[in-house]
Amino acid sequence: MIVEMKKRAPQEELTGVVDRAKSLGFEVQLNVGTDKTVVAILGSATGKTPIDIFAVLPGVESVTRIMKPYKLASREFKSENTKIFVGGVEIGGERIVAIAGPCAVESEEQLMQAALGVKKAGAAILRGGAFKPRTSPFSFQGLKKAGLELLRSTSRKCGMPVVTEIVDTADVELFSEYVDIIQIGSRNMQNYSLLTAVGKTNRPVVLKRGFSCTVTEWLTAADYILAEGNPNVILCERGIRTFEDSTRFSLDISSVPVIKKFSHLPIIVDPSHAAGHYSLVPSLAKGAVAAGADGLMIEVHPNPREALVDGLQSLTLSDFSRLMLELGPIASAVGRKV
Amino acid sequence: MIVEMKKRAPQEELTGVVDRAKSLGFEVQLNVGTDKTVVAILGSATGKTPIDIFAVLPGVESVTRIMKPYKLASREFKSENTKIFVGGVEIGGERIVAIAGPCAVESEEQLMQAALGVKKAGAAILRGGAFKPRTSPFSFQGLKKAGLELLRSTSRKCGMPVVTEIVDTADVELFSEYVDIIQIGSRNMQNYSLLTAVGKTNRPVVLKRGFSCTVTEWLTAADYILAEGNPNVILCERGIRTFEDSTRFSLDISSVPVIKKFSHLPIIVDPSHAAGHYSLVPSLAKGAVAAGADGLMIEVHPNPREALVDGLQSLTLSDFSRLMLELGPIASAVGRKV
Amino acid sequence: MIVEMKKRAPQEELTGVVDRAKSLGFEVQLNVGTDKTVVAILGSATGKTPIDIFAVLPGVESVTRIMKPYKLASREFKSENTKIFVGGVEIGGERIVAIAGPCAVESEEQLMQAALGVKKAGAAILRGGAFKPRTSPFSFQGLKKAGLELLRSTSRKCGMPVVTEIVDTADVELFSEYVDIIQIGSRNMQNYSLLTAVGKTNRPVVLKRGFSCTVTEWLTAADYILAEGNPNVILCERGIRTFEDSTRFSLDISSVPVIKKFSHLPIIVDPSHAAGHYSLVPSLAKGAVAAGADGLMIEVHPNPREALVDGLQSLTLSDFSRLMLELGPIASAVGRKV
Amino acid sequence: MIVEMKKRAPQEELTGVVDRAKSLGFEVQLNVGTDKTVVAILGSATGKTPIDIFAVLPGVESVTRIMKPYKLASREFKSENTKIFVGGVEIGGERIVAIAGPCAVESEEQLMQAALGVKKAGAAILRGGAFKPRTSPFSFQGLKKAGLELLRSTSRKCGMPVVTEIVDTADVELFSEYVDIIQIGSRNMQNYSLLTAVGKTNRPVVLKRGFSCTVTEWLTAADYILAEGNPNVILCERGIRTFEDSTRFSLDISSVPVIKKFSHLPIIVDPSHAAGHYSLVPSLAKGAVAAGADGLMIEVHPNPREALVDGLQSLTLSDFSRLMLELGPIASAVGRKV
Repeated sequence: MIVEMKKRAPQEELTGVVDRAKSLGFEVQLNVGTDKTVVAILGSATGKTPIDIFAVLPGVESVTRIMKPYKLASREFKSENTKIFVGGVEIGGERIVAIAGPCAVESEEQLMQAALGVKKAGAAILRGGAFKPRTSPFSFQGLKKAGLELLRSTSRKCGMPVVTEIVDTADVELFSEYVDIIQIGSRNMQNYSLLTAVGKTNRPVVLKRGFSCTVTEWLTAADYILAEGNPNVILCERGIRTFEDSTRFSLDISSVPVIKKFSHLPIIVDPSHAAGHYSLVPSLAKGAVAAGADGLMIEVHPNPREALVDGLQSLTLSDFSRLMLELGPIASAVGRKV
Repeated sequence: MIVEMKKRAPQEELTGVVDRAKSLGFEVQLNVGTDKTVVAILGSATGKTPIDIFAVLPGVESVTRIMKPYKLASREFKSENTKIFVGGVEIGGERIVAIAGPCAVESEEQLMQAALGVKKAGAAILRGGAFKPRTSPFSFQGLKKAGLELLRSTSRKCGMPVVTEIVDTADVELFSEYVDIIQIGSRNMQNYSLLTAVGKTNRPVVLKRGFSCTVTEWLTAADYILAEGNPNVILCERGIRTFEDSTRFSLDISSVPVIKKFSHLPIIVDPSHAAGHYSLVPSLAKGAVAAGADGLMIEVHPNPREALVDGLQSLTLSDFSRLMLELGPIASAVGRKV
Repeated sequence: MIVEMKKRAPQEELTGVVDRAKSLGFEVQLNVGTDKTVVAILGSATGKTPIDIFAVLPGVESVTRIMKPYKLASREFKSENTKIFVGGVEIGGERIVAIAGPCAVESEEQLMQAALGVKKAGAAILRGGAFKPRTSPFSFQGLKKAGLELLRSTSRKCGMPVVTEIVDTADVELFSEYVDIIQIGSRNMQNYSLLTAVGKTNRPVVLKRGFSCTVTEWLTAADYILAEGNPNVILCERGIRTFEDSTRFSLDISSVPVIKKFSHLPIIVDPSHAAGHYSLVPSLAKGAVAAGADGLMIEVHPNPREALVDGLQSLTLSDFSRLMLELGPIASAVGRKV
Repeated sequence: MIVEMKKRAPQEELTGVVDRAKSLGFEVQLNVGTDKTVVAILGSATGKTPIDIFAVLPGVESVTRIMKPYKLASREFKSENTKIFVGGVEIGGERIVAIAGPCAVESEEQLMQAALGVKKAGAAILRGGAFKPRTSPFSFQGLKKAGLELLRSTSRKCGMPVVTEIVDTADVELFSEYVDIIQIGSRNMQNYSLLTAVGKTNRPVVLKRGFSCTVTEWLTAADYILAEGNPNVILCERGIRTFEDSTRFSLDISSVPVIKKFSHLPIIVDPSHAAGHYSLVPSLAKGAVAAGADGLMIEVHPNPREALVDGLQSLTLSDFSRLMLELGPIASAVGRKV
């Protein structure tokens, strides 16, 4: 941590900063310039020490954190890429994993049709929402437990592991029983109770990025899961909120190489929620693969016109099949396969 | 809802839109222009109908929602201002309510000192965090249940109602027992399970704005609480996330008159989290009162230099006393009192 | 500047950084921690040295700037507040200056009616657009030179100085002749040619904040004008672009105390462009005064329904008169007058 | 345009809206619902009519624009893709055009080394800045006219057309003489004087997206150039400003398919300014090609460590050569070539 003193701050104020740092067990080094003094506070615990502790002291102009606040999710902590194995599928390996299915589970028939279709097209994992966090309380909230049961039975019949979103700590046991991968949605990325609860399970977790959270906050949220002993975290970029309104969210494609640089965790991309419109999904999916994503999570519905939720951003089965074919050569071009 | 057809869309596509709307029980009126046809879909339920249902149909260029998605929180639904009474304090009335106290409950002594100090300065309600949602799992997470007990005992001794933040649906019963007002924090504004759970209690709820949520989403989140039968929702503006980095968040002062225009619920302002620095808090507090806020929520610590959380944005007791004195004439100038 | 070296960076990489800094004339101090070495680079010229010079060197993990990039606009450079005198009006003094008038000059009659009305209500300076930067080339672009002539004649007849926006370096001489205060609009805040050109005149300049520029960038843009020898810069906050869509822009009220903290320049607030709707303007104007603004710039039109530009955000003359009366006690409450 | 009346608005207010619309020559159709009346205002000129004209009328709740404000840049206006030919290079055709070179022209030797290197690697067009818009007036501002001369001579020797940024309307003639393609930088995207001035030349124009402008505003800015008779506009996405701080800007990859959907103009991508760090540039470049971009503009410097401007985001010549090789198969995968 770097503490910049005010110009002409008296010696006693400088001493106050130094003493505070030493009382917390840190090393201190002074950089006395002609204009002002800069105090370097060193030690591996500075990453988890709030900067306010120093910023609030008299004579302090600014405090800058150098250590990143996340630890377990960092590449400094673990240099080799994390690979996650679930139901015969490897995430974070050579193969780019396609996760596909409807936004919401609506019926046994709808889910089975979607599952068989996406599997045929090359998807490795089935997705589908049972508990739906909706902006309005008057919107369809999902089939809930009945949806989980449909996901499990369909998943078994088709031989595909399944991922679905959890929204309440009270449901963790239920999810551990019914699903292969637990998803934390964007609105819950900083729901620390929920992160802690899924960290205590042995299920892999898809951690979607909060739509207004920085990459640093995202990796720090991952630390909540990792700190509980669950090493199987899959990051999912799904678009951030910006001023641009021609898409539902702005896909932050840069987060893919940034995550690869700073973290060992696999990262997948959800182009459907970012785009908000089916016509844009293929371009974003291709861009994500070329930029280095380890997988894609795509909404596919057998009949988008009848979808209860997010029909506009869902691909049809035939659109999805065509996309999977087109992704092959792009994956090859970056040394991967679909 | 307004459906704009594509130029030269064939008659059968237009018929498809009309039939879909009628099948959902809506009225339909056609506006046939020289360039394109515009379909107006009318009926009071359009506010809760997803626009995707029409946007996904062939021949549709765009769909625009006219009805707002929130209902119970709207001024159209209830025209007179909501006033909330708790522990002898009225929120939303003539008096501007000051809620003050430390960011986190640290000890009996710290809390009592803060409570007595803010009460003397004119605060009506005590605040203090017991369960702290922290960005990093390695930071201080609050005293939890012991913190609630301290809040209750201090509140009784001082004769001030108390507000504190809930972070888990599992704690709703505990909070109902221990606290007067339950707070939903910014990171949980769209935690619909939690909104529903507090909506089932009879405690007033402070609903902080998600730091990247629109006013419309905020009011729709309030609908989750109101729909469960709890009418006592207090909105709290606490700054939104923008590109500006000289403050922790950007206080959206405009949300005060916007809420007053579109909703009947009281709105208070938290200048401490928005500013992130004590030196900016008084100006923002004054601005909020002048702009029409019904109250303020301010972090005050007997000794900010020793605060475990957010010391930099905490006022000292003497700063807070001075601010309360300065707010008086501003409140008078807008026909209120402190 | 603080250069953080990578963990286990070899000595030669550290030497590379040190040598580069010394070659530029800076002082260097090393902070050797157990984990990594941190290099402090000190000297008054670091504020204008690009961080890339060090960031690009091998072994460097990150570079953090401590010195702010602006100089002449900073309170460190000049500690007392700048006061600007123009046509008998003081800006930055005890009196809060009201600048009012129509968005665009439309006719002699419209301008005169507006000028007389706002003067009677207490405005000190007349505003009106002659060259209008419009989003679309097919919109009304202003009366241009004829507009300047109307502004000058009306200004003289009413005895009020006048401010209007310049959009082209080619017009600087014309503006110097016709107007008392030159305005740089939000879209031109980083038009450095224009900043330099107005810096060479002796006219006071209203520098509107770019709607997506930080306070730091704003003050650095002010440096362009100040560096040419023109000390009379008036900063104008007019709202920033965020995700919120219930207002046209989000008024960054915090910028008022932030500017007061870091700069000696006067700051005024334009609530009209921020709000985008007349009904929100009075609340924002009151909030701005209470927060410490030195002035207000408000759009007022004798007949907003017939306005060629921005009618929706214009106050009527009677709305403006009422607002001015309401601002008086708020100004008093913060030790100012209107 | 869709005008929503307030609930229970009296007939005379409805008549006011209808009369205003008819007086402007529009068709009007009424949609009388049980709750409220909705007025559809139709006609091809509604796109350029400000919505304020109706929003300001009594009884109006909201006004929604359906027609987009841009016209000449729209695919509705011109359905086939625009292809631009300059110095033997086609932009917008099958081949993905690589534009490369240093951020700033520093010397004859530096520019020649860069030009020969990027040409050998496969770049088609040379870039280099002569007039540099810098945040601070104390930073290197470019070689100006001497830079233009170096660009011309180097361009001729190497047989590559050259693009460079203009910052002042006064320089349009100079640029027309010296450069093949004129660039409008991000900070000048809404400098309408400059747009109009380059629209009057016969040089192709690279129009960089304002870093806080929407796609709609970008295409409307293109209309300024097109309206003057210059059809050769090349759009360049270079990242938008968001809250994310791990990159300099957030590359809005979605703008590529969005532009392809709504406009006929070619779109290229600048990954260098978006990323701000050389290590991220290759991933973003690959993503852009896979998503459908027509070209790339990449900063390349023979010796980034000595670069006067933006060294950190510049590729070395060998990095650039490797990237060009890697782009080949991705281009093939989307039916293009490099």
